Amino acid sequence: MTATGFNFRLLATDGTARRGEVTMPRGTIRTPAFMPVGTGGTVKAMYMDQVRGVGADIILGNTYHLMLRPGAERVARLGGLHEFARWPWPILTDSGGFQVMSLSKLRKLNETGVTFRSHIDGAPYELTPERSIEIQGLLDSDIQMQLDECVALPASEKEIERGMELSLRWAERCKTAFGDQPARAMFGIVQGGDVPALRERSALALKGMDLKGYAVGGLAVGEPQEVMLDMLGVTCPLLPADKPRYLMGVGTPDDILKSVARGIDMFDCVMPTRAGRHGLAYTRRGKVNLRNARHADDPRPLDEESDCPAATDYSRAYLHHLVKSGEALGAMLLTWNNLAYYQRLMADIRAAIEAGAFADRAADISEGWAKGDLPAL
Amino acid sequence: MTATGFNFRLLATDGTARRGEVTMPRGTIRTPAFMPVGTGGTVKAMYMDQVRGVGADIILGNTYHLMLRPGAERVARLGGLHEFARWPWPILTDSGGFQVMSLSKLRKLNETGVTFRSHIDGAPYELTPERSIEIQGLLDSDIQMQLDECVALPASEKEIERGMELSLRWAERCKTAFGDQPARAMFGIVQGGDVPALRERSALALKGMDLKGYAVGGLAVGEPQEVMLDMLGVTCPLLPADKPRYLMGVGTPDDILKSVARGIDMFDCVMPTRAGRHGLAYTRRGKVNLRNARHADDPRPLDEESDCPAATDYSRAYLHHLVKSGEALGAMLLTWNNLAYYQRLMADIRAAIEAGAFADRAADISEGWAKGDLPAL
Ligand SMILES: [Zn+2]
Ligand SMILES: [Zn+2]
Repeated sequence: MTATGFNFRLLATDGTARRGEVTMPRGTIRTPAFMPVGTGGTVKAMYMDQVRGVGADIILGNTYHLMLRPGAERVARLGGLHEFARWPWPILTDSGGFQVMSLSKLRKLNETGVTFRSHIDGAPYELTPERSIEIQGLLDSDIQMQLDECVALPASEKEIERGMELSLRWAERCKTAFGDQPARAMFGIVQGGDVPALRERSALALKGMDLKGYAVGGLAVGEPQEVMLDMLGVTCPLLPADKPRYLMGVGTPDDILKSVARGIDMFDCVMPTRAGRHGLAYTRRGKVNLRNARHADDPRPLDEESDCPAATDYSRAYLHHLVKSGEALGAMLLTWNNLAYYQRLMADIRAAIEAGAFADRAADISEGWAKGDLPAL
Repeated sequence: MTATGFNFRLLATDGTARRGEVTMPRGTIRTPAFMPVGTGGTVKAMYMDQVRGVGADIILGNTYHLMLRPGAERVARLGGLHEFARWPWPILTDSGGFQVMSLSKLRKLNETGVTFRSHIDGAPYELTPERSIEIQGLLDSDIQMQLDECVALPASEKEIERGMELSLRWAERCKTAFGDQPARAMFGIVQGGDVPALRERSALALKGMDLKGYAVGGLAVGEPQEVMLDMLGVTCPLLPADKPRYLMGVGTPDDILKSVARGIDMFDCVMPTRAGRHGLAYTRRGKVNLRNARHADDPRPLDEESDCPAATDYSRAYLHHLVKSGEALGAMLLTWNNLAYYQRLMADIRAAIEAGAFADRAADISEGWAKGDLPAL
C-alpha cells in the first residue's frame, strides 16, 4: 500500500535508541537511516541501482549545487529531481545555506537572506527562506530543510545566539512558505553551537512550531566528538518523541553509533563517498587505506564476509593498483564498498534495537573496528 | 565444449568481408570483432560485467602499462591478468613496443630491443622481443603480439624499410621465444608504412613464418583514411585466408566498416572509451557531443532504440549536466553507451556478412551517421 502522506512511527526503542519508520508516497525510510549524498543529482561514481541495491531508502540532494547547475527551474521542467537523476524513492534536500557559507563567493547575510556569487561562474544569486523552499519544491524534494545559519565553531556565545535566533525566524518563514503539503515534510534545524542553553532554546522554540521533523545542525563542524554528543544529550530529550530526528552531515561510523544511542534517527555524510574516491575503505575491521603498499601483493578481498561484490570479488592487490593508477574503477568499487558498509551498519543497528540488544551490538561493532585490519600477509 | 587449442575458422564471406570465429580455451571470439581497450587491467570507468554484457568476447591489455604498474611478475603471482582484472574470457596483449615509443622517456632502440625509462617514475626498463613475449606469458595473455617497430608517418622510405626489416627479425625471435603453446597464439605484425612494396615484403615474409594470426600495424597513425585503406588493399590479399587478421588501433566506426570490407577480422581502439570520458557519444546517428548546450533541456534519451540502458534510461539533459559537472557517472554512462554501440555495430556487420548483405547494410549504417543527430527540440 502506498502512503498518501508523510508519517513517522516508532517501532521499538532500546534505551534512548530508536527504531522507526518514515512512510511517504515515494517509499518507506527505515530508521536509523543513513542517506548517501547525491550532491549534484548523482551519488558520485555510483549507478542509482547500486545505491538502492546496498539498501539506501533515501538519498540527499544539495540545493546549493543544484540551484547553480543545472538550475532548479530546469530540473522542474525535466520532471523533478527523481526523474532527472533516475531515483524514484524519497529524496531529502538541504536548504542550500550551509554550502552557500562554505563554497560561494562574496556572500552577504542579513535578515532577509543571503546573497552570494556562484563558485562555478561568479553569477549572482539570492537565497531567502522563501526561495530555498521554492527551490526545494521545484526539485520535488520529499523532505525539505529550513534555511538556517550555521555558525562555524569556535565562535562567541553572542554570535552563536544571533545565528540561532535568526534561524528560528527563518524557520517560521520556511514553515509559512512550505504551507500545507501532506505528502512532503519540512524539517526545522536546531542550532545553538556548543552552548547547551542555546540548544535548549532552539529545540523548544522549534518544537512549538509543530514541524514534521527536526534536524540538529551546526555539529560535526570541527568540534571534538564529545561536544557533539553532549549537544545531542541536551537536544534530543527536548524534541518530540513522535517526530524523526536528523543529525546533519554526520559522520563516521563511530559518530553514528553514538548518536543513535542518544536518539538520532537519520544521518547523511559525504565520508563514505569521498573516502571511496581517495582510496579509503570502510570495513567491519575499521578503515583500510588501499594506497598502502602492504596491499600491493595481497590476493585477499577487502572483506570476504561482506555481501557487496566490491568487497568480495576483487583482490586488495587489484584495488591498490586501481587506486595508485587513479583509475575510475577504484573510486567506483571503494565508493560501492563504503556505501554498502554504511548501509550494513544501519541494518545491524536497526536489528539490534528491535532485539533490545543495541548496547551489546554497538560494543561488538566498536571492538571489530578496534581490532584493526587483517594482519599483512 | 571447451576448445583445447587456438583455432580460427571462416564461417562466411561476402566479397572480401569475412565472418569467422576464433575458438580458444577461454572462449570464442566472433569476428569481425572489436576489442575494448583495458589499458592497465581495467576498461576505464566500466565494470567487467558491463563490458561482457555489451557483447565483448575479448579485451586488450597494454603490456607497456602493465609491465610498469603493477608489474608483470606481480600479475603472474596474483594468478595472471584474467584473475587480477576479473575478466575470465580471452585477452589479447600488445607487445609494449608502440607505447614505449609514444609514452616513455629516454628510449634507445637497437637490434637487441629498446631501453627506456618509465613515464611514471623514471625507472629504467629493457624490452626485447624475448622479454615482451615473457611478459605477455606472465600476464597469461591468450593472444600475444610480436615486438615490432612502428615508424611514425610521414617518414622516408628508407626509414620505413629499416623499421619493417627490424620488425621481421624480431618476429622470428618472438616466434622462437613463444615456442609451442597450442592454447595461445602469437601474431606477427605487418609493417611497411605507406609503401605498398614494403607492405608486400612484410606480409609475405610473415606468411612464410606460419604464425597463428597476422596484424596490420603502423596505420591509423595520422595518415589519411585512404592511405590506410590502400595499404589494407595491398596487404590483406597476401595474408593466408585461414588465419585471423587484426588491424591494430583502429578506429572510427567508419574505419571499421571499410576495413571489414577489405578483409579485416579484429580491431581495437581507445576511441569509444576515451570519447566517453570526454562527453562524446557514438550512436547510429553519428557522434553526439553531450557538452553542447542544445542538450541542456532535452528530456530525450541518447537513442531510444539502443539496448544499452545508458542510451535509453537517462535524458540528454542529465547526461549534459553530468558531463558539464565533470561527474564520474557521465564518463561511466557514455563509455558504456559507446562500447555498446561499437559491439552493436560489430554484431550488425557479422549478421550482414552471414546474410550476404554486407555492402547494403554498410551503406545503410553510413547513411544513418550522415543523417546526423536528432533535430534540436
Ligand atoms: Zn559529514
Ligand atoms: Zn585507435
